[in-house]
Amino acid sequence: MSAAPASFRIEPATPADLPLLATLIRELAEFEHLLPEAKATEADLGKALFGPRPFAEVVIARAGADPAGFALFFHNYSTFVGKPGIYLEDLYVRTAYRGHGCGEALLKHVARLAVERGCGRFEWAVLDWNQRAIDFYKKLGARPMAHWTTFRVTEEALEKLAGGNGG
Amino acid sequence: MSAAPASFRIEPATPADLPLLATLIRELAEFEHLLPEAKATEADLGKALFGPRPFAEVVIARAGADPAGFALFFHNYSTFVGKPGIYLEDLYVRTAYRGHGCGEALLKHVARLAVERGCGRFEWAVLDWNQRAIDFYKKLGARPMAHWTTFRVTEEALEKLAGGNGG
Repeated sequence: MSAAPASFRIEPATPADLPLLATLIRELAEFEHLLPEAKATEADLGKALFGPRPFAEVVIARAGADPAGFALFFHNYSTFVGKPGIYLEDLYVRTAYRGHGCGEALLKHVARLAVERGCGRFEWAVLDWNQRAIDFYKKLGARPMAHWTTFRVTEEALEKLAGGNGG
Repeated sequence: MSAAPASFRIEPATPADLPLLATLIRELAEFEHLLPEAKATEADLGKALFGPRPFAEVVIARAGADPAGFALFFHNYSTFVGKPGIYLEDLYVRTAYRGHGCGEALLKHVARLAVERGCGRFEWAVLDWNQRAIDFYKKLGARPMAHWTTFRVTEEALEKLAGGNGG
């Protein structure tokens, strides 16, 4: 899709944005065919973003007063690089704003934060069927981390692993 | 390999452990065939672990006074789960201590921290050729995140992405 580029204002989210964010996260989950996995409440989000120990940061893109998309990210760390990095957990642009440069504007915004904060890497994960996103990321200079697979432990398996007397 | 299980004491690293940690990280890089990528200095590590804004935590496993391995991790966040998680960046056991339960003890220790801190996930990445590690992780209840690929922007590509006027 191509369209005339729109102008987006990108600013950190505030507690007043929590209802909007909860809506955008559900839209994102729906787009990813993962709606049943989207269990976070507004209270969960508020605690994670604005609580005493924030676990993530959010920036929201707006076209005029209209919310167009958001990026949620946090810092990671590489012992090899010896510097923190930024991991982009969510990048979402609403249907009406796709093809207008909003995703690129959000990525560039977070990349600038990464450089300003002395980060060595900027990373995110993409669903393998989302070829449009993959092509877009490659065009922007991102490279797929072939040869690595992420393993995850959750729920009962996590409780079980934590409960064993291995330590 | 199988051997009689040894007993490991697992404790948070202190600034006095920085020279040891730098050595262990180089050993890990060598094992992963990634030694040229291991660029972090002791000063980098000290800043990241014990600076005003810590980016990661380390626990060290010892058998008696002898360092046997370490785990380095930090918190991530999932908007779907609505809770923080723990991402294990490095897990390393020295050659002499492999097959004695040290890796499992370190994993269980960090899993317990994840549960204590109310985390919904415990994750890490593994090199696809490391079948021994993959089998070990599966046995502990971890599941590979098929269908997702991590993309990464570094160095010149990151500077370039940050420098464009997209925001």
